[in-house]
Amino acid sequence: MQPFQRIAITGKPGDSAVIDTIQKLVTELEGRGLEVFLDDAIGDALTHAGAPPVARLESVAASLDLLIVVGGDGTLLHAGKRVAAHQVPILGVNRGRLGFLVDVSPDRFDEITRVIDGDMHIEERLMLEARVVADDQVVARAPAVNEVVLQRWNTARMIEFETWIDGEPCNRHRSDGLIISTPTGSTAYALSGGGPIMHPGINAVAMVPISPHTLSNRPLVISASSHIEVRVQHASIDHVHVSCDSQSDLKLAREGRLDIVTYPHALRLVHPPGHRYFDILRAKLHWGDGAPPC
Amino acid sequence: MQPFQRIAITGKPGDSAVIDTIQKLVTELEGRGLEVFLDDAIGDALTHAGAPPVARLESVAASLDLLIVVGGDGTLLHAGKRVAAHQVPILGVNRGRLGFLVDVSPDRFDEITRVIDGDMHIEERLMLEARVVADDQVVARAPAVNEVVLQRWNTARMIEFETWIDGEPCNRHRSDGLIISTPTGSTAYALSGGGPIMHPGINAVAMVPISPHTLSNRPLVISASSHIEVRVQHASIDHVHVSCDSQSDLKLAREGRLDIVTYPHALRLVHPPGHRYFDILRAKLHWGDGAPPC
Amino acid sequence: MQPFQRIAITGKPGDSAVIDTIQKLVTELEGRGLEVFLDDAIGDALTHAGAPPVARLESVAASLDLLIVVGGDGTLLHAGKRVAAHQVPILGVNRGRLGFLVDVSPDRFDEITRVIDGDMHIEERLMLEARVVADDQVVARAPAVNEVVLQRWNTARMIEFETWIDGEPCNRHRSDGLIISTPTGSTAYALSGGGPIMHPGINAVAMVPISPHTLSNRPLVISASSHIEVRVQHASIDHVHVSCDSQSDLKLAREGRLDIVTYPHALRLVHPPGHRYFDILRAKLHWGDGAPPC
Amino acid sequence: MQPFQRIAITGKPGDSAVIDTIQKLVTELEGRGLEVFLDDAIGDALTHAGAPPVARLESVAASLDLLIVVGGDGTLLHAGKRVAAHQVPILGVNRGRLGFLVDVSPDRFDEITRVIDGDMHIEERLMLEARVVADDQVVARAPAVNEVVLQRWNTARMIEFETWIDGEPCNRHRSDGLIISTPTGSTAYALSGGGPIMHPGINAVAMVPISPHTLSNRPLVISASSHIEVRVQHASIDHVHVSCDSQSDLKLAREGRLDIVTYPHALRLVHPPGHRYFDILRAKLHWGDGAPPC
Repeated sequence: MQPFQRIAITGKPGDSAVIDTIQKLVTELEGRGLEVFLDDAIGDALTHAGAPPVARLESVAASLDLLIVVGGDGTLLHAGKRVAAHQVPILGVNRGRLGFLVDVSPDRFDEITRVIDGDMHIEERLMLEARVVADDQVVARAPAVNEVVLQRWNTARMIEFETWIDGEPCNRHRSDGLIISTPTGSTAYALSGGGPIMHPGINAVAMVPISPHTLSNRPLVISASSHIEVRVQHASIDHVHVSCDSQSDLKLAREGRLDIVTYPHALRLVHPPGHRYFDILRAKLHWGDGAPPC
Repeated sequence: MQPFQRIAITGKPGDSAVIDTIQKLVTELEGRGLEVFLDDAIGDALTHAGAPPVARLESVAASLDLLIVVGGDGTLLHAGKRVAAHQVPILGVNRGRLGFLVDVSPDRFDEITRVIDGDMHIEERLMLEARVVADDQVVARAPAVNEVVLQRWNTARMIEFETWIDGEPCNRHRSDGLIISTPTGSTAYALSGGGPIMHPGINAVAMVPISPHTLSNRPLVISASSHIEVRVQHASIDHVHVSCDSQSDLKLAREGRLDIVTYPHALRLVHPPGHRYFDILRAKLHWGDGAPPC
Repeated sequence: MQPFQRIAITGKPGDSAVIDTIQKLVTELEGRGLEVFLDDAIGDALTHAGAPPVARLESVAASLDLLIVVGGDGTLLHAGKRVAAHQVPILGVNRGRLGFLVDVSPDRFDEITRVIDGDMHIEERLMLEARVVADDQVVARAPAVNEVVLQRWNTARMIEFETWIDGEPCNRHRSDGLIISTPTGSTAYALSGGGPIMHPGINAVAMVPISPHTLSNRPLVISASSHIEVRVQHASIDHVHVSCDSQSDLKLAREGRLDIVTYPHALRLVHPPGHRYFDILRAKLHWGDGAPPC
Repeated sequence: MQPFQRIAITGKPGDSAVIDTIQKLVTELEGRGLEVFLDDAIGDALTHAGAPPVARLESVAASLDLLIVVGGDGTLLHAGKRVAAHQVPILGVNRGRLGFLVDVSPDRFDEITRVIDGDMHIEERLMLEARVVADDQVVARAPAVNEVVLQRWNTARMIEFETWIDGEPCNRHRSDGLIISTPTGSTAYALSGGGPIMHPGINAVAMVPISPHTLSNRPLVISASSHIEVRVQHASIDHVHVSCDSQSDLKLAREGRLDIVTYPHALRLVHPPGHRYFDILRAKLHWGDGAPPC
């Protein structure tokens, strides 16, 4: 028996290579008698007779066994959050260029079919939740796979804020902002900001200052189970912006407090057998490519 | 009843402020009827009648309830490793300048006596063990509280080596070396090398490249339970040096393999009530001191 | 005879310590029979009978021999640009906290009077000019003492642009922006961005990428006589912002080209005898303060 | 008439691709009736009848019109210093992999012949001279094209030293050492140490600290006409090493003073028409290669 019975497929819209791969996937999956849905975000993509039913990902998530995402890391991030509360395993198929998350090539269709037939492993990636707090109530929240970013907005001047961790004062910041990154996000924006690469196997988050005024204000790695509070100074409150994975957008309340905690569910990534994290890292960062600089 | 019955004291030799503090400690402890030993490293320091017995730390470690170290972080590192196998709790008293590890001031004798009377908490700090491997046998080993460093030695040229993690290839390095740092060591040499600050509560180690040839070779944080292998190229083998906490010195075998794993025992630090990690960090890094650079 | 006959004074408004220093300066200067003006930006500050005439800095700049600025580096930057076209020498008096530019203390009034009496030297600091170009015409321009910054604005996504130097392609950028900094600005925002410190005596500018996507995109120091062009991608054009010293604000034209060249006049800083650049640098960066990190 | 009459050739020994290129060069040059010498370092390489005369580079340097170096950047650095006092123009031909200095490809023989026929431009690169000073006498000296490095040696502990610039105190260092780099060297070891890239057209040198203890000790760019003094602490004097381009080796005197000044002659690089610095930089640093990290 097939391990995954109900499978949804989504992908980067408007990309013909993505559509081709999706069509091939549909044929393969239906050939196995599996139940296939197309996410409505790409629902118009397959229009031939017998195309699989279109559904809103969120509405079928509870009963899905697998989500296949065809596209780039950004596509997977976005889709992943739509089903995260139901912990649907996700297989990422890249569209020609290897990603950190979409690590299966459409040219290796054998890898994809092996996964579908159950020869795979599932890796859990911790997620964060950003919470806007006002009067000690959470008034808005959003999940993040890569990072939560607090940054200056609509001003050329620095912003000022404090960080507190598990109720203790951590640092007073004068900077362009702060990146709170998961291990998954450590190879994304946090890396541009000077943060360390973190293996997905560690239960930690990095707090990476953006252009800090104080040179000793360095990236800080703390337990993922920490409760992080960011308290923005009154003068800066109209000049900060909070985003999750460069996608969501949270507006701070007057009081200016942002909490960051672990999201209750993990992102569940499906990998083919033989997948190794450091292989991806080396390929993406060109490690060992005959010594670039000199 | 006193929680600590048998207490050893050691300190930085040849420092009169240290001797004064030790004398005061001896008086205080003996006044409580506790059994006190002086480490032979500073044994000659107290010579008056009734001075406590002198003993080699290692020989009494198994029966010690507490070790008090008076000096700097380096003094505590060194002494801590001498008793680590017996997991003796260690109280660090600084000699005028706050350290990351010796965080109790001799001017706050009330804090010291509260600790002695049991009003304290114990924090465990993970340690590493560096192992020289030849013919798949461990031929030499040394513990590290801060970091294991592999570096070029007696050459002005780069060294070449590979890193493997849990049996998988990680990176090929052309650099001046590699720092494998505990969270405790993340504020020491690893920080100078560009590594992140890691909270002692995370179970992770950082691999920080020293002057890497490849700009994308960045600090990497992995689980402390990882098994790290460093395989040095033949051409570099006579030009590398391995040290633990800048103190021990291991000679690689011809084959050039160095393994780094978690040490089986933790360093057990005793703190007075109210001790907070971020307070120490802020004080040592001058965070929030009215914005240094501009 | 006094070397400076016509002297204007300005300062940070709304700061009583600044007003006190200005009053003291006025008394001292008028006691020497010198002609003193108060900048209209602080014109209301001195209201007693016999207070010096108030004038708009720009309207008297052509005939000024000296401008004295009391405040912080930001105050001097702003005032300096108002008189830069007339190359008026500027003496910066700090208001309690040493600045990189306002390097004379109000507590060292003897230093100030020696300067007024001609015992001083004048240092020239190169300035930049940012030019918005449309249809090969300069449609807007602004001077910068510290830096010109092109940065993303109102978006959480990276911006894309190219840099050209003296007509040759330099780099293609995917980042949060670019800082083009003078030596004077090298201890300001560019330092937070990871740029080098540049001695004011070198005829160079630094191009410092902000959170670059590509790890090999590093700070680049080029001749100050270079002609820098920044060409913003169409997709990014509505999401970039150009500022000079965090103060001016230039709007790019549809075509998206920004040129940066040397400003035709230098900022002329007046220093008391014995002034040494590295002394300021050491004091501001706490160099040699007993080794902060460990 | 040919612009270059007397031409010497040298190259990386023991590399058959290098020998092939040299043979081709000899044939081409002799076909033009030019006088050709082979450096004795590769003298045995061409053994056929009619092979050009072998000479020690230094002994013919005074009368050379051109030196052609076939190999890598290291080969050119080494050869360049052997003829630098006579300011011989140098053409660098790489042996398959582009270098920063050996920027002509053996596959583009047309470029080489155009250079030989005079269609080229000469670029001057400033060099440094390291001087060991004892009792105010220079007791040893060596030139550097890339960098002078002072570093700890045979010790796992930091070294301490002071820097003075033009007779004024600059900084007190506790670190692994200091790189004093030319613009040419800014893409070599100094880049690994975190220094900026400096365009060869600027008259500046960078002082890049190696693993500094103090986080605010950042790369410093000063005028190349500055006189740099490094004064090593007595306790560190037996644990420092001075090298130039990783090749020379200077022993400090007891007093521990090292001076770094501009070398009186420049390295003169010959480039084919159309050579552009930023093209080399982009190619070597992979700038614009479809965004490596994510």
